[in-house]
Amino acid sequence: MMLVLGHTNPDCDSLAGSISLSAFLTKRDGKTVTPIMQGEPNAEGLFLLEQAGLACPEIRTSIAGEEVWIIDYSDFNQAPKDARQATIRGIVDHHKLGDFETDEQLEAWIWPCGCSNTIVYNMYKINNIDIDQKVAVMMLGAILSDTVHFNSPTCTQIDIDAAHELAKIAGIDDIDAFVTAQFAAKSDIAAVPSEELILRDLKVYTIGNKDFSIAQIEITNIDLALSRKAELQSELVKYKAEHGYHTALVLLTDITNLNSVALIESEESALVAETLGGTFVDELIDLPNVVSRKKQVLPPLQTQFK
Amino acid sequence: MMLVLGHTNPDCDSLAGSISLSAFLTKRDGKTVTPIMQGEPNAEGLFLLEQAGLACPEIRTSIAGEEVWIIDYSDFNQAPKDARQATIRGIVDHHKLGDFETDEQLEAWIWPCGCSNTIVYNMYKINNIDIDQKVAVMMLGAILSDTVHFNSPTCTQIDIDAAHELAKIAGIDDIDAFVTAQFAAKSDIAAVPSEELILRDLKVYTIGNKDFSIAQIEITNIDLALSRKAELQSELVKYKAEHGYHTALVLLTDITNLNSVALIESEESALVAETLGGTFVDELIDLPNVVSRKKQVLPPLQTQFK
Repeated sequence: MMLVLGHTNPDCDSLAGSISLSAFLTKRDGKTVTPIMQGEPNAEGLFLLEQAGLACPEIRTSIAGEEVWIIDYSDFNQAPKDARQATIRGIVDHHKLGDFETDEQLEAWIWPCGCSNTIVYNMYKINNIDIDQKVAVMMLGAILSDTVHFNSPTCTQIDIDAAHELAKIAGIDDIDAFVTAQFAAKSDIAAVPSEELILRDLKVYTIGNKDFSIAQIEITNIDLALSRKAELQSELVKYKAEHGYHTALVLLTDITNLNSVALIESEESALVAETLGGTFVDELIDLPNVVSRKKQVLPPLQTQFK
Repeated sequence: MMLVLGHTNPDCDSLAGSISLSAFLTKRDGKTVTPIMQGEPNAEGLFLLEQAGLACPEIRTSIAGEEVWIIDYSDFNQAPKDARQATIRGIVDHHKLGDFETDEQLEAWIWPCGCSNTIVYNMYKINNIDIDQKVAVMMLGAILSDTVHFNSPTCTQIDIDAAHELAKIAGIDDIDAFVTAQFAAKSDIAAVPSEELILRDLKVYTIGNKDFSIAQIEITNIDLALSRKAELQSELVKYKAEHGYHTALVLLTDITNLNSVALIESEESALVAETLGGTFVDELIDLPNVVSRKKQVLPPLQTQFK
C-alpha cells in the first residue's frame, strides 16, 4: 500500500496535502493511495475537515517497510522515527531541500511557492485530472493558511491563481468570508493549554552546531495570546531545558494586522533579538511586518549562527 | 549570472541538458542562463553538437559564488569540488535522490523516467514554450543515448513520446537512421586511449562503507573493445589502486545486441560477479540482456554490500 504523509505537528498544508495528493495519485496511477498524519489536526485543520465534510486521515507514526510519498518537507527530522526503513517514492514540497536520500528513482515536485497544495493543484492540471469538490475545499484552506490569505512574503502568483481556481471547484464564492471563519477557528485558543500551544506548529533547525526551535502561533488578536505570556514563557523555559536547545522561540503572529511578537529563551537572547532586528525587552521582541518563519525569521538566524 | 551544469564525465544527457534547460530558463524567466560543462564532450556528444550546428558549452570546474541549476544528478560527488559554495536554485534529474541540501527554496523536477531531457521536454510543454530546432536535435540525441534507442529497462512511455515529438521539431524523419549514425560515432573508439575509455562514463557509488566505481563503454561491436582487453584491464588495475576503491568495474555494453560484458577489479571479484548473476572467468563476466547500470547493475550491488 502506498501512503502519503505530511510532517510532525501537522498544519493545514500537511493535512490537506495528504488528502489531495493521495486522491491525485489514486486517480493518476490507478491504485489505492492512503493519506496518513503524524498527529491530530489543529483547530484550523478541524475547521477545514468540517467545511469539506471529510473524515480525518488515520494517525500513524510508524512507516517502516511502507512505500510513501512525502508532502511539505524533505528532511528526516520532520518524518516518523523509522522513516529510513521506508521507501520514499515521491516528494511534493515548497521548502529548501533537506537531508532525504533514496536508493531508487523517485518523483519529486519541489517549487519555490507559498504552499505544497499549489503544486498539487498544478499536478492535477498538468495531468488533466478533475479535483473533487471536497478535496478542493481542503486545498484552498491550505493555501489561505500557508500564505496568510496571500499576505505572506512566501506567496507567489501561482498560489493566488491556484486558490481562485480551487475556490470555483469548491463552490466557495466569497473567499474573504471563508478565510475569516477559518482564521477565527485557528485563533480560538482559549481552551488550548499553553504546553500544547507552544508545540502546535514547531520546527527545529540545526544552524552551525546549535539547535533552534521556532514555534509559530497565528491568531487574529495577538493580545489574546499575550494575556497568557507568563504561562507560555514558563512552558518555553521547560521545553528548552528538556531538549537542550540553544534557542527556543515562539512567534505570536497577528494574521489580521500582519505583525509578530516573539518570545525568546536562548543562550544568547540579546543576539537572537538583534539578529531578528528587534530589541529584547521583558523577554519579548516586536517584529513589525513579520509573518513568515521561513522567509523572515529563519534566514537571518542562518546567516548569524552558521 | 545563472548557470546550468551537468555531471562530471559529461554524457549526452548532461551536455544536451545544460543547453536545453538553459534555453528553457532563459525563455521562461526572461534572463540570461548559461550552459556549462565539467569537461569535454565524448564522441557521441560531439556528433550531436555537429548535427545540431551548435557550439560546445564553456567548460568550467569551479562554481563557487554562482547561482546554478543542476541537471542529471543530485549528489556532491558528481558536482564541481566547490559546489557547496554555490547556490543551487534548481534540479532536473531522473536518478535516485542524492546528498544535495540547500539553505533556500529551490525548484526540483525529478521524475522516474529514462532521461533528464524527457523532463526538460515536459517543462517546455507544460509552460507552452517553443523548443528551438537545434536544441530539439540535442534533446532527441540525449534520449536515444540514455534509453539505448528505447531498449533500456529505464525507458518509459514518456521518454518515447518525448523523443517522437522532438524528432518532429528537429526535422528528423528517420529516427532509426539518426540513431545508427549517433551510435556509430559513439563506437568509434579506435583513437581513444584506454585510460580515457575507462573514465569516459564513470560513476562512483558508496555502498555500506565501500566505494564502487562503475564505468560504462557503450559500443555497437563489443569485440572492438574486447580486442583491447589487456590494456583496459591494466588501466583498471592502476585506477583502482590509485583511488583505493573496493571495486572498479567496467561495463562493455553492446548497444546493437543489448548485452554486456564486465571487467572486474575488486577485493571480492568472485562475490561481485556472483552478485551480478555471472561467473568470473578470465577477469570477465558475461551479463546477457544487461544494458542499464542504474537498473540492472547498481541495485544488486546495493543489496549485497549495504
